[in-house]
Amino acid sequence: MAKLKLTYFDFHGGRGEVARIALSLGDVPFEDDRIPFAEWPRRKPATPFHALPVLEVNGLRVTQSNAINRYAGKLADLYPSDPLQALICDEVMDAVEDVTVKTVATFSIENEEEKKAARKALVDGPLRLYLQRLEERLVQQGGEWFAGGRISVADLKVFAWVGHLKYGKLDHVPVDLPDRVAPKLAVHLDRVRDHPGVKAYYAKHGATP
Amino acid sequence: MAKLKLTYFDFHGGRGEVARIALSLGDVPFEDDRIPFAEWPRRKPATPFHALPVLEVNGLRVTQSNAINRYAGKLADLYPSDPLQALICDEVMDAVEDVTVKTVATFSIENEEEKKAARKALVDGPLRLYLQRLEERLVQQGGEWFAGGRISVADLKVFAWVGHLKYGKLDHVPVDLPDRVAPKLAVHLDRVRDHPGVKAYYAKHGATP
Repeated sequence: MAKLKLTYFDFHGGRGEVARIALSLGDVPFEDDRIPFAEWPRRKPATPFHALPVLEVNGLRVTQSNAINRYAGKLADLYPSDPLQALICDEVMDAVEDVTVKTVATFSIENEEEKKAARKALVDGPLRLYLQRLEERLVQQGGEWFAGGRISVADLKVFAWVGHLKYGKLDHVPVDLPDRVAPKLAVHLDRVRDHPGVKAYYAKHGATP
Repeated sequence: MAKLKLTYFDFHGGRGEVARIALSLGDVPFEDDRIPFAEWPRRKPATPFHALPVLEVNGLRVTQSNAINRYAGKLADLYPSDPLQALICDEVMDAVEDVTVKTVATFSIENEEEKKAARKALVDGPLRLYLQRLEERLVQQGGEWFAGGRISVADLKVFAWVGHLKYGKLDHVPVDLPDRVAPKLAVHLDRVRDHPGVKAYYAKHGATP
């Protein structure tokens, strides 16, 4: 078994949380290196692309969150072996990353009126569209899990994203947006949260998902 | 064999080119649906995420370029089966996508002075950093190919990106940037271009890579 070290920020959410949950679900041992935000400016220049997460595999540093999620998913038996189901798992993860990038682009807007307008455009445009399309994909895949007929890293990725929309307190993004636009994703959020492995992960860390 | 239809814009480059080359290299039959730019506004609303490429697999529409590249890579034997090599292949493809998103963000800047400043920041920041890091990865992987010791979709992805930097005529981005910052990636570009399957692809389409 490879020696793994996963470095990410010290909070439950964001781009590193999916791999942490996946490895925990699969009982795959890893060093859970959590960086306090205050330490980030000092450590940032030493990361390959000035970003987290970073996974070390036997000392080899690898980046890119969905690449890491996929690798963690394979180790934890949370990634489909069938190529078409793997394609759909990948599509879902990349779609969430896509809309996350669009969302993060509004974080740095300082003018409050501009930010409000940008967030409204986000809600009426990408957030609504991606919620709807991902709900359609879930339904087309049977309604319970996104790929392979059982829980996979795609479910964890959507779970983290929809959870952020509902509980992340994004200014000017109504917290009931998932419930209104994609109610089956809101139910899916509960399904993932109630998965025994996911519950055990949050219980272990004394956190609420 | 699944019936495949790949829809993308009618030019050689961008997010759809890698899967086209990969399927051609692997002699995987597919319908090569090329949309003229003039038709895009009419067809855009009917695409799942208002974006291309879209791959149809036996009529099922799937999106996200790197997810499609990975699937095409599996069908064409251009994707590593070893999980760690697959992780590195994925990292490389996602890193290129990452820097592409940062580049595309400067396309819509209308003010010429602002665009010039944004492109300069791009050259001095992400473009330089990603070129350097990807060159380091190539060297660490043996210097010839990015993953698995032979050509993969990661090589095609970097090839399309570095080719765009050198020949895409991006205003305020010096075309010799790859040669200066990451000379081994410039050599890698030639290596991929001279691959018999890649040469055959471009010869068939009467295009220069």
